[in-house]
Amino acid sequence: MLVRTRLDAFSLPSLARGCAVLAAGGGDTELGLLMALRAVQRNGPVELIDAAALPDRALVMPCALVGAPTVAGERLFSGDEGLVLRAMTERLHGGRVAALMCLEVGGVNGLLPVVWAARMGLPLLDADGAGRSFPQLEQHAMHLAAIAASPVVLTDGRDNTIVVCADDDAAAERLVRRTAAVLGGVCAAALYCLRAEEVLAATVAGSVSHALALGQAATAQPSGVAAALGATVLLVGHVIAVERVSDGGFASGSATIRGFGREDARQVRVEMQNEYLVAFEDGAVRASVPDVIALLSSETGVPIATEELRYGHRVTIIAIRGAALWSTEAGSALTGPAAFGYAVAREPAAERDAHVAS
Amino acid sequence: MLVRTRLDAFSLPSLARGCAVLAAGGGDTELGLLMALRAVQRNGPVELIDAAALPDRALVMPCALVGAPTVAGERLFSGDEGLVLRAMTERLHGGRVAALMCLEVGGVNGLLPVVWAARMGLPLLDADGAGRSFPQLEQHAMHLAAIAASPVVLTDGRDNTIVVCADDDAAAERLVRRTAAVLGGVCAAALYCLRAEEVLAATVAGSVSHALALGQAATAQPSGVAAALGATVLLVGHVIAVERVSDGGFASGSATIRGFGREDARQVRVEMQNEYLVAFEDGAVRASVPDVIALLSSETGVPIATEELRYGHRVTIIAIRGAALWSTEAGSALTGPAAFGYAVAREPAAERDAHVAS
Repeated sequence: MLVRTRLDAFSLPSLARGCAVLAAGGGDTELGLLMALRAVQRNGPVELIDAAALPDRALVMPCALVGAPTVAGERLFSGDEGLVLRAMTERLHGGRVAALMCLEVGGVNGLLPVVWAARMGLPLLDADGAGRSFPQLEQHAMHLAAIAASPVVLTDGRDNTIVVCADDDAAAERLVRRTAAVLGGVCAAALYCLRAEEVLAATVAGSVSHALALGQAATAQPSGVAAALGATVLLVGHVIAVERVSDGGFASGSATIRGFGREDARQVRVEMQNEYLVAFEDGAVRASVPDVIALLSSETGVPIATEELRYGHRVTIIAIRGAALWSTEAGSALTGPAAFGYAVAREPAAERDAHVAS
Repeated sequence: MLVRTRLDAFSLPSLARGCAVLAAGGGDTELGLLMALRAVQRNGPVELIDAAALPDRALVMPCALVGAPTVAGERLFSGDEGLVLRAMTERLHGGRVAALMCLEVGGVNGLLPVVWAARMGLPLLDADGAGRSFPQLEQHAMHLAAIAASPVVLTDGRDNTIVVCADDDAAAERLVRRTAAVLGGVCAAALYCLRAEEVLAATVAGSVSHALALGQAATAQPSGVAAALGATVLLVGHVIAVERVSDGGFASGSATIRGFGREDARQVRVEMQNEYLVAFEDGAVRASVPDVIALLSSETGVPIATEELRYGHRVTIIAIRGAALWSTEAGSALTGPAAFGYAVAREPAAERDAHVAS
């Protein structure tokens, strides 16, 4: 049964909350939500469709912001970037784009494709490339399915567009990172374009619905959000230390959270590199990438981004099982702790609750 | 009458010498000549054609190296860059490239398009964008004719390709300069693509033939080269001072040349920014851009590049009249002394000799 979901002023706040959780500390979604709300108010809701609804050979355009996350929060986008991305993508691929797709459903990148889809009257595919946010270009389902990231279309939303074509995705990553700097640090991107018949094998299906369900659960039950999310609760406590290191373009560091109460002297240390990556307790891994680690404000249930985390914050540390493809050998090599420089074994989070993950 | 010229092992050395003169001190052509000789030996000669020989609507691809000139001399190109440029250009323009064109006929950029044309079995158009070398992207006839530089296709010849699309040519210049750095400092480029019917109004016609004629004259008469070139001789003397300033990515500076003999106490100071731009004598302008100023070795007749010029060199300073379009108001604003920061009036070089300029 195809139940068609509309992304509108009612559902978008939930989507934004879900995307904030799946950002794993990677960024705020408020600006993205405001842009998406304005876009659907002006242009009408965006239809969320399954791959089955796509005509054969239809072109699907994954899109996102790429570049420095700290700049992304300070740089306003007009919402017209999608038009530029689409025009160049169609020129390069010689066909019409039938639907947009979130490159990743985490953070603002779960919302900007909604803005662009609304502006163009295009549907959004209920899928993404990661089921969350990941920092590297290669860390996407399309890469595992041998779909090339190139040509990567980049635009600054000010009529400047750059297309990067590289021999392989690792080279594309290097060139895109440096080219984003040329365009002002952060830019809108379309990459990993694929055809309708490739979608099922090359994406994380249902991930927009999943983000929406997460967000609805979080909104309905802000105090008991962790349970509602079908997440593993690692610790409820307060931040007693945050260390930050700016290293190779990444905002790295770690945060230490101590449990509440005398009887609960437990401490969890969470390592971060833009995202929360690994949670340690007594030297043992409690959770790690590719599972989503989120720190929710114990007062509001709102996810706290790595750069906003401060001494004294009361938080609930949760872990949400990552998409199934990241548990394969190739998926694990691409997104497991080792891919981020941690020589530790993953401690998988519990399977998702059926009512949330469906 | 259409006399078809073939660029082959007999004519290429003359073309290389002519391009070296028209580089106006901007670079050496030896490496380009060796590559061109090898390409025509392997793939046969390149046909030099007039615009009239192009089918209607045929796509002409101007191409060149862009980026830092000092890197260009140290960076080997495979000769396959043309294939990459052509493939992406055809993808972007949705048509087949019928002929290549030198973006500028000065220096190595007069020869690399020959290499690429030979490899692909394509003809070379007897025209270019400047009639010489100029350092800025906008300083081309196509820009004056309102043909956009974008999309600018750049490749490093190692399977990495970047396309820059900017709102205007000034923005394209900035983006291309920075993007060339991403690709290693210097790269092969295709830009200002145009259609057959636009060629006459938007290029300097006959400029490859002109370079060839210059080179033949220089080769035939190395001692009296200046006269053979139909050039104005400003001074015959020796270099008594070279000052260099590395400023904003340009190798700037000036050279002072003193006339030979007791009776000839004349001194000419030549200002340079990669190219020789203005020649002063007793504070007055003797020659300037857009005319070509070249310093020929008095021993060999070979043009000396700005970066090779040394104290003690015996040189003949000549000036060759620039292409007619640079004498128009718009052309003069784009390529005259003021465009390079000199608040002086141009002192035009004498009209070209008919036998050389034809």
